[in-house]
Amino acid sequence: MRADGQGHLNELRRRLAELASLEEVLGILGWDQEVMMPPGAALARGRQVATVALLHHQRLCDPGLGRLLEELAARDDLDPIDAANVREALLEQRRALRVPPALVERWSEVTVAAHSIWVGARERADFADFAPILGELVDLARRKAEAIDPDRPTYEVLIEEFEPGMTMAALDRHFGALRAALTPFIAELRGREGPPLPAVMRARVPAATQEAIGRELMGVLGFDFERGRLDRAVHPFCGGAGVHDVRVTSRYAEDDLLSGLLAIIHETGHALYEQGRDPARADQPVSRARSMGWHESQSLLWENHVGRSAEFWRFLLPWLGERLPVYKGAALEAITRALARVDFQNEIRVEADELTYPLHVILRYELERDLFAGELAVADLPAAWNEKMRDYLGVDPADDRRGVLQDIHWAGGAFGYFPSYTLGAMLAAQIFQAAQRAEPAIPSELAAGETARLRTWLRDQVHVQGSRLQSDALARAVTGAPLGPDALIEHLRGKFSAAYGIARSALATP
Amino acid sequence: MRADGQGHLNELRRRLAELASLEEVLGILGWDQEVMMPPGAALARGRQVATVALLHHQRLCDPGLGRLLEELAARDDLDPIDAANVREALLEQRRALRVPPALVERWSEVTVAAHSIWVGARERADFADFAPILGELVDLARRKAEAIDPDRPTYEVLIEEFEPGMTMAALDRHFGALRAALTPFIAELRGREGPPLPAVMRARVPAATQEAIGRELMGVLGFDFERGRLDRAVHPFCGGAGVHDVRVTSRYAEDDLLSGLLAIIHETGHALYEQGRDPARADQPVSRARSMGWHESQSLLWENHVGRSAEFWRFLLPWLGERLPVYKGAALEAITRALARVDFQNEIRVEADELTYPLHVILRYELERDLFAGELAVADLPAAWNEKMRDYLGVDPADDRRGVLQDIHWAGGAFGYFPSYTLGAMLAAQIFQAAQRAEPAIPSELAAGETARLRTWLRDQVHVQGSRLQSDALARAVTGAPLGPDALIEHLRGKFSAAYGIARSALATP
Repeated sequence: MRADGQGHLNELRRRLAELASLEEVLGILGWDQEVMMPPGAALARGRQVATVALLHHQRLCDPGLGRLLEELAARDDLDPIDAANVREALLEQRRALRVPPALVERWSEVTVAAHSIWVGARERADFADFAPILGELVDLARRKAEAIDPDRPTYEVLIEEFEPGMTMAALDRHFGALRAALTPFIAELRGREGPPLPAVMRARVPAATQEAIGRELMGVLGFDFERGRLDRAVHPFCGGAGVHDVRVTSRYAEDDLLSGLLAIIHETGHALYEQGRDPARADQPVSRARSMGWHESQSLLWENHVGRSAEFWRFLLPWLGERLPVYKGAALEAITRALARVDFQNEIRVEADELTYPLHVILRYELERDLFAGELAVADLPAAWNEKMRDYLGVDPADDRRGVLQDIHWAGGAFGYFPSYTLGAMLAAQIFQAAQRAEPAIPSELAAGETARLRTWLRDQVHVQGSRLQSDALARAVTGAPLGPDALIEHLRGKFSAAYGIARSALATP
Repeated sequence: MRADGQGHLNELRRRLAELASLEEVLGILGWDQEVMMPPGAALARGRQVATVALLHHQRLCDPGLGRLLEELAARDDLDPIDAANVREALLEQRRALRVPPALVERWSEVTVAAHSIWVGARERADFADFAPILGELVDLARRKAEAIDPDRPTYEVLIEEFEPGMTMAALDRHFGALRAALTPFIAELRGREGPPLPAVMRARVPAATQEAIGRELMGVLGFDFERGRLDRAVHPFCGGAGVHDVRVTSRYAEDDLLSGLLAIIHETGHALYEQGRDPARADQPVSRARSMGWHESQSLLWENHVGRSAEFWRFLLPWLGERLPVYKGAALEAITRALARVDFQNEIRVEADELTYPLHVILRYELERDLFAGELAVADLPAAWNEKMRDYLGVDPADDRRGVLQDIHWAGGAFGYFPSYTLGAMLAAQIFQAAQRAEPAIPSELAAGETARLRTWLRDQVHVQGSRLQSDALARAVTGAPLGPDALIEHLRGKFSAAYGIARSALATP
């Protein structure tokens, strides 16, 4: 390293730690807004958040930081972690610098307006009310993407915000294979009698009891309460301020214990990723989660591959029985089969089961892709939506409220976000297979309520790695193969075939 | 107003609103730290707070803001509220600008170190361990005061941070009169049999019940829960983010209902001040509380003149009886007399009763004054402390832990803060007299649990006024007289004479 190298690195770390501090402050303000803030503070909170976000933007775009990053990026004597840190910071700064301030301002004005217009349109189930401002948002998103990188497809640039390194070619390939495998499989299941819902799963459990059990279960999964909390919110989420301060929220329906428990397991999966970040780099970009898809892989791994698995329920059912007498002596097999029930009439993404969920996402991916390719007009979205719902899931949405207007994402300008949910599901299946290959004792330990081996493996392989590698390289390093849909297809076929009494061999290969 | 006048005013308001937003963010982070934050987040929180505080300092010291303020301060066509806004902002900027950055940095390093040294020294009851770093803090405070204003007494400049416009001459006069009146009065009471503590006041009430009653009582006092919350903390405080988001905390001892209730009434007094600030200027310095003493006047008015008054207990006792059967039928007079019990052995300021509290403060004022006048050495503080405790209160502190090391203030460099407590008590008595003169129905309404008339009067006279007037002018406007000790002396003599069975006429005039 050259003589001034360490000085420049120290200065970079100082500046990036300042940015991380402001991001953490925004994390605490966001959590507070959902969990603690009195309603009358909403306007003032908007002003506070805008002030901190603007200061963050100014510091991120500071020319001094730019010079430092360019200088360090040209070096060949940085250690790989420092080099990755520079690469990640540079990518973030370039995205921020290239969007003109006037466009940033217009973007935030239009998204604020779009949110309330969307709320009203959804209530009235009238897409026509939302279409004009959605059209404006699509146009602004297009201009934003062109400002960031005029040489790549608009939609790919938008996706990059959530999935750095992901290409539309890869998404078309992965999602095409998934759709081809799942659509006929779902059609096949539809004619069969599914597993019944055991009455015990509708037993009334007070919210406070559910919360106490959920908190204890978080401890079983390895959540560190010295560096985090559990609270209530309307929509469960994992927020807070990074590795030292991870805040999970959930909500409880008194006649549906399972839904609250699975929400907690899901958010705890996100939380373990945050708590497992490299503590020595906690205030640097290189320690951040690799992408939204990678984050979702951790929540879905714990939710679907642990929380809905027959193995873990061998531990969980008697454990619940000790806390809730109504669960004492319940039949294990009936419950684990019921965890793989499909609601063939469901039209809502957030209520979808593990099997149909990817098709809800693929539908949205295809619509966004065609919209930004200029092959679909905003006005034609409802018809295209409903047609795909019929083709992929055999469902006719009752109206736009339960169809094209159901999600909040587009009203917030979050185009290109949906794919991450299913990339996460693919990764989760692939990672869980790899974990079991590397540590064959994992299933039997989960059956005894021992989670340390799986958690430690995930921490070493994924959490502490953060953004050291690019997404593709990380997938290869963790699972031995590039990201693909096969593990997810195998997992879903196996689980749902068993629940619906289909012999594996009876399935056609797609 | 000149043509560019409104443009400059708008630019000023924008810049000051940005500063207010950052102060509010610090308020939420501070509240979160005491109430919500997991312990493992402490270091990261320190980094977050330091980052926001530094950005605030940089924006406050921005030369563009300085030019704008100087330009507007030179105008004679501003309306009085805008002019006051400029005056307050200028004062704050000057204090920030005049302290050299190296001194600011050294100050925050030494206060951090001093805090943990003080904790250790207090545990061991050994002042000698604390003396060296206290000496360094005194020296730094002196340099800070000289940087801000080399032409005024050091201690007065330090006091100004908490009490703008207050002079040492006035403090010597007020505190001298108070000491002369209270010292012989306390000596007179000491020989008498005080009111007994009714057994009901030690009845066990679970913390959750106390909290529910406290929350309801806040509603009776007029706290707006749309713009605030109640939570628990180790030390009760009122924090949050100003007029739209006021957060009260309290703590509960299961065998001491009264202490928890009075803490809530005290903090609600602070909270009503914040909620009553001018909503049209909520993000501007002119809407801020006039001083620490004025803030304390509002908490002490509600605590001592309402919460400990015979009138309000005519409402409160039956109200408590409806919620806690043990209070049903308790003797009103026994309780109201017990509210004026003096613990003649007490050596701790925060545990002191209404009567002896001012002497604890006067003692500290005199020591700080002599310290910064160079008439007292740090090493001689314990002896001076103990001598004054004997002279003023007839108490011999058991050791330094219960003597000179008992308060956290000096370890944090908060020299000049103590006087505000007793200035607040003086103001509270004077304001409450004025309120009753203006609105004679107040006592009978308090006896019926109706607080709106008093609260509205305080809001109009004090809360909404914020910092429009300087402290002296505000005292005259609200009470018709300059600030002085007479109302407090009259109030204490009346209440404690009654409780201790002394006829008023038997008292010597000081």
